Amino acid sequence: MAQALHIVVAIDSFKGSATSMQAATWVADGIHRVDAQAQITKVPIADGGEGTVEALTSALGGKKVSQMVTGPLGDQVQATFGLLDDTTAVIEMAQASGLNLTDALPDDALRASTYGVGELIKGAMDAGAKTIYLGLGGSATTDGGVGMAKALGARFYTERGTPIACGAQGLAQLNCIDVSQLDARLAQVSIKILSDVTNPLCGPEGAAAIYGPQKGLTREQIPIVDGWLKHLGDLLEQATGRAVAGQPGAGAAGGLGAGLLAFTYAKVYRGIEEILRMVHLDEALAQADLVITGEGRMDAQSLNGKAPIGIAKAAKQYGLPVVALVGARSDDLGPVYQAGIDAVWAIMNHPQTLAEAIQTVQTNLTTAGETAVRAFLMTQTKGD
Amino acid sequence: MAQALHIVVAIDSFKGSATSMQAATWVADGIHRVDAQAQITKVPIADGGEGTVEALTSALGGKKVSQMVTGPLGDQVQATFGLLDDTTAVIEMAQASGLNLTDALPDDALRASTYGVGELIKGAMDAGAKTIYLGLGGSATTDGGVGMAKALGARFYTERGTPIACGAQGLAQLNCIDVSQLDARLAQVSIKILSDVTNPLCGPEGAAAIYGPQKGLTREQIPIVDGWLKHLGDLLEQATGRAVAGQPGAGAAGGLGAGLLAFTYAKVYRGIEEILRMVHLDEALAQADLVITGEGRMDAQSLNGKAPIGIAKAAKQYGLPVVALVGARSDDLGPVYQAGIDAVWAIMNHPQTLAEAIQTVQTNLTTAGETAVRAFLMTQTKGD
Repeated sequence: MAQALHIVVAIDSFKGSATSMQAATWVADGIHRVDAQAQITKVPIADGGEGTVEALTSALGGKKVSQMVTGPLGDQVQATFGLLDDTTAVIEMAQASGLNLTDALPDDALRASTYGVGELIKGAMDAGAKTIYLGLGGSATTDGGVGMAKALGARFYTERGTPIACGAQGLAQLNCIDVSQLDARLAQVSIKILSDVTNPLCGPEGAAAIYGPQKGLTREQIPIVDGWLKHLGDLLEQATGRAVAGQPGAGAAGGLGAGLLAFTYAKVYRGIEEILRMVHLDEALAQADLVITGEGRMDAQSLNGKAPIGIAKAAKQYGLPVVALVGARSDDLGPVYQAGIDAVWAIMNHPQTLAEAIQTVQTNLTTAGETAVRAFLMTQTKGD
Repeated sequence: MAQALHIVVAIDSFKGSATSMQAATWVADGIHRVDAQAQITKVPIADGGEGTVEALTSALGGKKVSQMVTGPLGDQVQATFGLLDDTTAVIEMAQASGLNLTDALPDDALRASTYGVGELIKGAMDAGAKTIYLGLGGSATTDGGVGMAKALGARFYTERGTPIACGAQGLAQLNCIDVSQLDARLAQVSIKILSDVTNPLCGPEGAAAIYGPQKGLTREQIPIVDGWLKHLGDLLEQATGRAVAGQPGAGAAGGLGAGLLAFTYAKVYRGIEEILRMVHLDEALAQADLVITGEGRMDAQSLNGKAPIGIAKAAKQYGLPVVALVGARSDDLGPVYQAGIDAVWAIMNHPQTLAEAIQTVQTNLTTAGETAVRAFLMTQTKGD
């Protein structure tokens, strides 16, 4: 070849076996077996959920800041946010208030608070952040962002004028919101919500109805909590003048979206799209010959919002071939091909169980990266 | 595409799960998912061993003839030879005298005879064959072809003038060979031995030393049997005037090669190469855009004589891209790529055990065939 290959590697995490950046690194090792000079742009995939801070700080050369915060059930937990530059931070709500920090029991779902998210926002502002990317995936909470706002100075009172309890259950007693003590810095901070959730705060498509069950809410509790959230929406509008309950994304992270939209200058961004913009995917694609994407499991269902599909669509703007390397795939992938992925293969080198495949994921991804480039080159060398 | 794709599919059998032609058919199904008009040439892979008769008769439109013959240990067994046209037959020695017809015990190895192979040759001549392709893979025997020659009229006597016993053990008593009663038709028949074995009849690289153990010969028996074979070589030269013992392939199939070279007009051909010539591989390659090969397991060792390597070398004469679809592969396949295979992938769609992979081999091969074409096309469509 006259010129070195340019390859963009943008692989989602293989849950339980490889982060997005690990997968990209191992695939890159395989590419370099074929072409030691290949220029490889490793694009981390994240959508605002787990791995977002790691992905963005590693891709953009930021630094990580660890902080003790209040976990969803009141314990202290360590959370890490990223500083991408002097004025830009990235936070994952799940590090402070994530579902993985509770047992997802009904009582947990009622008590879980976003207080720690407010502490992280405060920490980011203390570090100088004027722009905060806030990933909303993986929450344990359904408190409408009340905990977050409390940590930043808002006050929530019962009819008797006492502070309400933590978590969704506190909303039952909520009578009055006082924003007079809210951290004044919030007026100068832009919060960019990274989320694929477009649900409203309440109603049949709301936070309790759609996401309550996975957090532990019982079928009986859901309409009750939904009523509390509706009441919160009314009081938020009274207190802040903003009608946020019906806005797309207000129901993200158990209504944390609504709280952010009401108390801060926040805007909702589709997680994957905004992150790909942040890591300059388009600039990498403009120079690329081949795109390698992938994920743990690919099938013809639920393509919407999946990272490899977003990558493929972007790659096709530049007429690039796209290979997807996956842990498992269904036989029929018609819609995947229509979305712009040219070929898909599973990465196992021989028959092996899932446990064995997880053990050998590094080798499998390295081999698969090598194979992807070899497959790409097979027609390039014809007649050379 | 302006013109329909031409694809040559030449896949070795996946032992225990798919014959060569099954594999080709399933891969073709996958190709047709991508391009219903694709012209596919299915090339059966065989090397003279199991499946050779089936592969050649199906590829060349011949007919099959079944015949009861004497098995290696004296039982009657049914064997099938192929008639490719009025004067051309194809025989697998293993159908008459194969290792799968014995228990590979030491006693079996001493007794096993090639008598049934002679009966098949006679059957083929009775059917009009002037050219007989004779595959030598998978033999149970180490009788130097004496059984075969007996069935065709040669006589083997002890010092006392009585007929020797069957199998390798009879060679211990052999004193005199009488070819006066040999079937006269053999003088007008060309026997083409299909074998990848180039070993001589006897000595450290001979039939007993190299192939005896897998047939059941003990370490102690091997030098003894080797001595008998050496003695046979001497007597063959006396009886026929041909010094065959040292010829390449004389040691194939327990010395059946030597017997054929001595008693018939036979020539040794590399199995895979001759068969690919017979099925007109070159003509198919001359029109092809892509070659898909494969086998059950591919690694960097023991490439010599393997079908996919032969296919790839032939394909590279035409500058064609070659994809190999395999049941299992090692990570490092450097020598495979050097031999002309462009890319290799294992066909499992998800983590699964070997037993599960065997169960789903049809789906896996169909998906893999589809993926091979999609991978081939990914760079063809760029900018179209």
